Amino acid sequence: MCTPISKATLGRIPQYLNFLRSLDDKDYVSATFIAKALNLGEVQVRKDLNQVCGRGKPKIGYKLTELIGCLESYVNIKTDCPAVIVGAGKLGQALYGYSGFKVYGIDIVALFDNNPQVIKENQDKNIFDISEFELFCYRNDIKVGIIAVPQESAQQIADMMVKNNITAIWSFAPVDLVVPKTVSYKREDLALSLAHLTKLAQD
Amino acid sequence: MCTPISKATLGRIPQYLNFLRSLDDKDYVSATFIAKALNLGEVQVRKDLNQVCGRGKPKIGYKLTELIGCLESYVNIKTDCPAVIVGAGKLGQALYGYSGFKVYGIDIVALFDNNPQVIKENQDKNIFDISEFELFCYRNDIKVGIIAVPQESAQQIADMMVKNNITAIWSFAPVDLVVPKTVSYKREDLALSLAHLTKLAQD
Repeated sequence: MCTPISKATLGRIPQYLNFLRSLDDKDYVSATFIAKALNLGEVQVRKDLNQVCGRGKPKIGYKLTELIGCLESYVNIKTDCPAVIVGAGKLGQALYGYSGFKVYGIDIVALFDNNPQVIKENQDKNIFDISEFELFCYRNDIKVGIIAVPQESAQQIADMMVKNNITAIWSFAPVDLVVPKTVSYKREDLALSLAHLTKLAQD
Repeated sequence: MCTPISKATLGRIPQYLNFLRSLDDKDYVSATFIAKALNLGEVQVRKDLNQVCGRGKPKIGYKLTELIGCLESYVNIKTDCPAVIVGAGKLGQALYGYSGFKVYGIDIVALFDNNPQVIKENQDKNIFDISEFELFCYRNDIKVGIIAVPQESAQQIADMMVKNNITAIWSFAPVDLVVPKTVSYKREDLALSLAHLTKLAQD
C-alpha cells in the first residue's frame, strides 16, 4: 500500500509547477536544483518528487517535460475534478466564488439550496434547487461534495451525498457527521483554527 | 518554556467542558472517568488536562468546579477575546455571522470595508469604513485580526493590523503574507484542504 500524500507535500506541488514551467531552456532538473531555487530543504523536495513521480535518474534528475506532466496529472490540472456545494448562504456563495480551487484542478460546478428565494435571486449563477441534486450528480459524475448548510441539516445532506456516490465530503457545519468508511470526510473547524492561532499569540 | 498547546488538545476542551458541566452530582473527577465517558484514550485525556490545568490529585483526580473553571479560563470563555474582520465580501460576512467562534471565547465585534456601498447596505450590522479601523482597535484593545480581502490588498491590510498592535492574524487571502516574528500568522488555505481531502478519496 502506498503512503497517503501529506497536506504539506500536496501544498508544495503548485509551487514546484510554477517554477518548473518557468524553465523553458532546460532538459533535465534535479531535486537539488529545485530545492535551491525555491529555498526548500533538499531532502524534502527529493521526498516529495519521489512520492509523486518516482525517482529521478542518478546525477541528472528528471526530464523537465515529464516531471511537469506527472505533477500536473497528479493534481488533476488537466482533468478537472467537479465538485458541488450544498447550501447557498454567504459561506456557500463565498466558496463558490473563490478562484483558488482551480490550482488543484477542482472545479466547483454547482450550488444547491432549498430556498426558492435564493435560487430566484441568483438565476445568473449555477444555483439549483436541491430536488435536482440527484440527477445533476449522476449526469456529471460528481465525486466531491461540500456542505455549507446549518448544523441541523448537515447529516441529512451528508447522507444524500453518500447515496449519490460522492466519495469526498468537506463540511463546514459545526458538528461531527457520520459517513461510511469508504467516504473521505473532513470537518473544517474554522473556529478551532482561529482559536488555536489566538492561543499561540497569547502564550 | 512551556510546550504550545496542540490544535487537537484545544479542540477537545469544549468537549470536556460540555461533559463536566453535565456532572452536577460529583465533587471530584478523574481523567480515567472522563476518558471512558467520552470514548477517548486515557493517556490522551490525562495529557490534555495536565497541560492545561496541571496534575490532578493521585487516586481522586480533579475537583470538578476547579477543573471547569480552569478549562473555561483557558479557552477564555469568561473573558471574551474581541476580533475584527477586514473585508465585508461574502466570506467576511459568512465568518461574521458564524456562531461557532463563541465556543472558544472569540467574539467577532466588527467588520471593516472600503466600499461605501457595502457599508450603506448593512447599516444594521457592525460594518465600518476602514478609516475607522485604527481608532476602533485602540479603543477596544483588539488583538485578533481576520483578513478576508482580495489577494492584492492582503499585505497592506496585514501591515495595518501589525501597526495597530494586533498579535494574531488569520488570513484567507491565497498568498503568503509577511509579518514580524512577534505576530502569530496563519494562512487558511481552503483550496489545499479540499484538494487534500479529494486526493485521499482518489488514492
